[in-house]
Amino acid sequence: MVQYAQMDRPLAALADPTRRGILERLGRGNATITELAEPFGISLTGCKKHVQVLEDAGLVATEKVGRARQCSLGPRRLDDIQEWIETYRRMLDQRLDRFGELLERTPQGDPR
Amino acid sequence: MVQYAQMDRPLAALADPTRRGILERLGRGNATITELAEPFGISLTGCKKHVQVLEDAGLVATEKVGRARQCSLGPRRLDDIQEWIETYRRMLDQRLDRFGELLERTPQGDPR
Repeated sequence: MVQYAQMDRPLAALADPTRRGILERLGRGNATITELAEPFGISLTGCKKHVQVLEDAGLVATEKVGRARQCSLGPRRLDDIQEWIETYRRMLDQRLDRFGELLERTPQGDPR
Repeated sequence: MVQYAQMDRPLAALADPTRRGILERLGRGNATITELAEPFGISLTGCKKHVQVLEDAGLVATEKVGRARQCSLGPRRLDDIQEWIETYRRMLDQRLDRFGELLERTPQGDPR
């Protein structure tokens, strides 16, 4: 398994419920910082910071449209993270299988 | 899409290459803190801290065996995170499809 250093930022960006909420909102359509801030009850400054973290991680693209900053989803597809988690789950299953085999092979003692 | 607050800890735990490396190592077999620290060239104290973060996130289980602390993978299967990332990817694809449709519908002007 390869160490993907570029996975650090998106994982850290996703480790916050407001930032995940912002991505879910952008999944329904593009929005300005003001439109994003309102439903989460956060300040414009707070929202800008969250969007900046998401943008640095490649999960959000922003564009200046007049006086507003328009946000949209992407471009990162999270292929590497999805792949990593699938490998982790396979490893976990294999460990559990081996543990099961070990239990079966362990002598249970004579019931008499 | 539901907000899973319990996703915060595992995502933050995974956002570090050494911690992902520790999980990959444990995927090949259980290990003590000392055995985990060595290949990463980190101190025992540093390794203990990483293992603690992973244990708090449910990604590693530890057990005191004599004077050593034996670490193993699990129990968290990361179902929720995998599901969330799949939903994100679907949303991204739908946004890109809609963008493509929009481009097709936009009049291109008369080439003459």
